[in-house]
Amino acid sequence: MSTTDIIGYDWPMGRWEPNARGRLVEAALELYSDRGYDQTTVAEIAKRAGLTERTFFRHFTDKREVLFSGAGELQQQLVHALDNAPDSLPSIEAISLALEAVAGGFSERHEFARRRQTIIAENAELAERERIKLGSLAFALAEALRRRGVSDPAATLAAEMGIAVFRVAFERWINETNEPDLSHILRVSFDQLKAVTAGK
Amino acid sequence: MSTTDIIGYDWPMGRWEPNARGRLVEAALELYSDRGYDQTTVAEIAKRAGLTERTFFRHFTDKREVLFSGAGELQQQLVHALDNAPDSLPSIEAISLALEAVAGGFSERHEFARRRQTIIAENAELAERERIKLGSLAFALAEALRRRGVSDPAATLAAEMGIAVFRVAFERWINETNEPDLSHILRVSFDQLKAVTAGK
Repeated sequence: MSTTDIIGYDWPMGRWEPNARGRLVEAALELYSDRGYDQTTVAEIAKRAGLTERTFFRHFTDKREVLFSGAGELQQQLVHALDNAPDSLPSIEAISLALEAVAGGFSERHEFARRRQTIIAENAELAERERIKLGSLAFALAEALRRRGVSDPAATLAAEMGIAVFRVAFERWINETNEPDLSHILRVSFDQLKAVTAGK
Repeated sequence: MSTTDIIGYDWPMGRWEPNARGRLVEAALELYSDRGYDQTTVAEIAKRAGLTERTFFRHFTDKREVLFSGAGELQQQLVHALDNAPDSLPSIEAISLALEAVAGGFSERHEFARRRQTIIAENAELAERERIKLGSLAFALAEALRRRGVSDPAATLAAEMGIAVFRVAFERWINETNEPDLSHILRVSFDQLKAVTAGK
């Protein structure tokens, strides 16, 4: 990676390309929606964005990563929030706090998330990839709980519950219009989890 | 599929091969353990079992299916048990009942399950496949709950919790020696889930 990459600029063939990453994401989403994910090539994405393939590969390792590049950052943020939750909190409350801490960051990504989810829902391989990423997320949260002194199986169960709640809340958030509030939906979903587990 | 396949016999090249499937599974597990899953070919599995590749492909579509062929049957049994659970049961109790109903069938497969899990744990691709299969299982359980009149997100949450409990119980069962009782471990794990969710 060159110095220019680190500070977020591109200098393909000597020219500065403003917001290359955003243009590539937009071009990819359009093409995945219009003609299908499997039928889209990196060359076509780059062309529609008015950029070169070389520029594409500076930002993403392949066309799938356009849809999943946020997973690593989300995991880091969640683990960081969990590591910093008050020691006194029961594990399920610490997980809930961590999820709410990252929820705010999604508010400006509602449109992207909605379009992304439609593409993923229509492709079995992408849906599997999403499932695997959420599994990794649950694994990382369980690890963070163990660092807090929570033993297994409680750590694994609390982490899996958290991801299950996140999934249903996220889906509801995506399907709502009119500035939905992911934090609020998460709280409601945690209450639903508690009701279901209590046999209500 | 020929008639002879349906009733469980093989007639490769005119000879009757007793328990070909069991021999193929045993040969595959040995090879996956000894030299690694990626390094093992179908030809080698068939050779070690004293059978032909043609016989292998009568039983399994590929070498991965040796480890995952039980997933479809497990799903059928779970959904069947859930469809037949008393209507009055809350969803989490119905899920618990269904899991216990299939638990007995595992008692004779402890050794196979233990060896299989070791192989899967050592291979990222297989671990992802396992996760995907469990995701499909959760999806099928949620579907069955919706048929019982449970609405979402309760159906999805109850199904995901059931699979999370099944996973942790199954892992504990695998690691125990001395005739462990999966039904009992499942009941204990459900109690742990309830405690975790209640913030204990």
